[in-house]
Amino acid sequence: MTVQRLSTYYMPTLKETPGDAEIISHQLLLRAGYMRKTASGIYSLLPLGWRVVQKIEQIVREEMDALGALEMRLPIIQPEEMWRESGRWDAYGPELMRLKDRHDRGWCLGPTHEEIISALIATDIKSYKQLPFALYQMNTKFRDEIRPRFGLLRGREFLMKDCYSFHASYDDLDEYYELQAQAYGRICERMGLNWRRVEADSGQIGGKVTAEFHAIAEAGESDIVYCDCGYAADIDTLGEGASLEVCPRCGGALERARGIEVGQVFQVGPQYSETMGVSFADVEGVDQPPIMGCYGWGITRSLAASVEQNFDEFGIKWPAAIAPFEVCLIGIGKDDAVAAALDALACQLDEAGVEVVIDDRAERPGTKFADADLVGWPHQVVVGARGLEAGTLEVKERKTGEKVDVPVKEVASYLKQRLG
Amino acid sequence: MTVQRLSTYYMPTLKETPGDAEIISHQLLLRAGYMRKTASGIYSLLPLGWRVVQKIEQIVREEMDALGALEMRLPIIQPEEMWRESGRWDAYGPELMRLKDRHDRGWCLGPTHEEIISALIATDIKSYKQLPFALYQMNTKFRDEIRPRFGLLRGREFLMKDCYSFHASYDDLDEYYELQAQAYGRICERMGLNWRRVEADSGQIGGKVTAEFHAIAEAGESDIVYCDCGYAADIDTLGEGASLEVCPRCGGALERARGIEVGQVFQVGPQYSETMGVSFADVEGVDQPPIMGCYGWGITRSLAASVEQNFDEFGIKWPAAIAPFEVCLIGIGKDDAVAAALDALACQLDEAGVEVVIDDRAERPGTKFADADLVGWPHQVVVGARGLEAGTLEVKERKTGEKVDVPVKEVASYLKQRLG
Repeated sequence: MTVQRLSTYYMPTLKETPGDAEIISHQLLLRAGYMRKTASGIYSLLPLGWRVVQKIEQIVREEMDALGALEMRLPIIQPEEMWRESGRWDAYGPELMRLKDRHDRGWCLGPTHEEIISALIATDIKSYKQLPFALYQMNTKFRDEIRPRFGLLRGREFLMKDCYSFHASYDDLDEYYELQAQAYGRICERMGLNWRRVEADSGQIGGKVTAEFHAIAEAGESDIVYCDCGYAADIDTLGEGASLEVCPRCGGALERARGIEVGQVFQVGPQYSETMGVSFADVEGVDQPPIMGCYGWGITRSLAASVEQNFDEFGIKWPAAIAPFEVCLIGIGKDDAVAAALDALACQLDEAGVEVVIDDRAERPGTKFADADLVGWPHQVVVGARGLEAGTLEVKERKTGEKVDVPVKEVASYLKQRLG
Repeated sequence: MTVQRLSTYYMPTLKETPGDAEIISHQLLLRAGYMRKTASGIYSLLPLGWRVVQKIEQIVREEMDALGALEMRLPIIQPEEMWRESGRWDAYGPELMRLKDRHDRGWCLGPTHEEIISALIATDIKSYKQLPFALYQMNTKFRDEIRPRFGLLRGREFLMKDCYSFHASYDDLDEYYELQAQAYGRICERMGLNWRRVEADSGQIGGKVTAEFHAIAEAGESDIVYCDCGYAADIDTLGEGASLEVCPRCGGALERARGIEVGQVFQVGPQYSETMGVSFADVEGVDQPPIMGCYGWGITRSLAASVEQNFDEFGIKWPAAIAPFEVCLIGIGKDDAVAAALDALACQLDEAGVEVVIDDRAERPGTKFADADLVGWPHQVVVGARGLEAGTLEVKERKTGEKVDVPVKEVASYLKQRLG
């Protein structure tokens, strides 16, 4: 592949923080050139932002595939009649974006896809032998928030992974639900999130057993208490007399924060199968509704949550697993020797499977260093005439700020090792 | 990775062709379990269909990246005021799907994104030094066809790659436009399409220099004439006296067909920059509007076009480059030896980088063979007790129907070599 160079990359950074950006992820994602606002609650993802999305999507994809879930794609616009069958057309309220086509038929822009997937499988599922199975997609979703805010945390158009599983029995659903919940924990770990599993209220979906996955952050919209033992709860769902200070599980001290919900798992049950007319013949030949599980993960929301947990006064500090590039080579000066060293090092890193970008812009060194910290490359290498003459290059880890002088010939292997 | 098994795969094949499917790609994609109709002109892509989409997207991505275009993501819903600025809100007609949000503000579902991308770059582009650049996305698009038909060929919701380039001069645009056109030729070749470049009318976008890329097929909606020398033209755009039999370029015989437009390249010019207020300071410091090129590729449409060119009375004959899997191992009988051989061979192929699926369903051999031809795996390997005892397995190439007995130990290397 060709190594990317910032001189021809579309990464417009801003010196000033846009006025309507209240929280840090919103501010930094705008300032560092990851996204731009197109309208209230609607964002365009610039190339850097899209790269982070693709990294998160790939982590989620690998975890879903490992559970045997199959990726597919459902439509964004959904017919009114299906939402009437399920009863949600009237129940959902003004958050559901609705439209009419040229023939005056009603549609909505899907916030979730329980109706669509139930109608989809209705004609193809006939026997218990076809169960269980799970299908998922990563797709654009819509919710007409009355007051969109906080950038990617509460937008009107957003990216979500939604997975639906279908089972012949509750026991089977129980088992798969727990596998999904464990996969969500692994997604959080791989993204480097500080997270808690919160047993929670089921909201609009309507099932009973459900859990939310929260990233711990001050900017979150949920008020949660949590403990080192793993216990966590949404304060709004606790009974009146519940303590907010002592953990009911281990007796330890509870901590409190406004959590960001990045994922949710539900045991939905048979309700959509019943309203949408899905049934299978069980072992005795008796028609039964498949029992549904539903598992949502906020792709763009978890991107913003990561920034809320990984920043300092200079900018973003991406975990390497979801950074747009892992290493930035910062070229200082116009020497031919510097240009040659940049190319050689980039080539070595690229061949070693390290994602590298070259800052070859005609900017002052101070601007390049500031942009590197703002954008948040996990590792920065300063490539200038002075270092080349001395035979060592300065390698900085963004997360810790630690700077190490590494012999030129060992920079690639050093970084390869640091990136695991 | 875990090798997929059809016993747990979601691939519901149909014995009967659905009544409203008029053309072969529509019929076969439904029958072979690639997609299902959700509503008129709206399809859900099942796991097999989505895999083909991902293959096509990756080919398109590689060709765009090779031109230095950067992938990003624009919003699906677009504000009415931007379409009023460009003048297209009134001009576009009933094909534009429109809606109001809860605050009674107007939006449309994007069929293309010239307004959005122009508004996006307006505040960030200041100098000729930032030009040229090209941004692209692969995203869901909408067009409210008065009569949706032909499955993925004329739907209301579809997947499209749209790329926008911005230039300081027409000379620069000319050069890049031709590079894009050449990349489109390579995409066609890599997808295995029989294609022609047709100089054509510019339709809704409004520029002057434009070319369409057509897959030659009877089911196409364009009436084109074409010649072995490379000449091709849309009959509707030819003057009254033009011959439909003699090639105006080489004098050879013209052939005629209803082409499927899979891609189009445009020299749009400065019009959106002017209406959306985008400008840059040129070398003399004078404000100029960037000159736009626009390059669209129909992802789902080219999928259907491939099927229109690759089928027989038994089903689809995928080119290996875009097949959902390259090889299907068809297990015959319930022997332990057969199960062990399936696992061993799948493992060898997987390690050799061949995409393999195992048909381990409890179906009769005849059903499995028929489904394999219907679904269109490029290569099929029959794994049964008889072959294992004889020490050879039958390997069938779907495209030619050719069957070869290959020693068991050589099957993986034989297929690896056939797949290049």
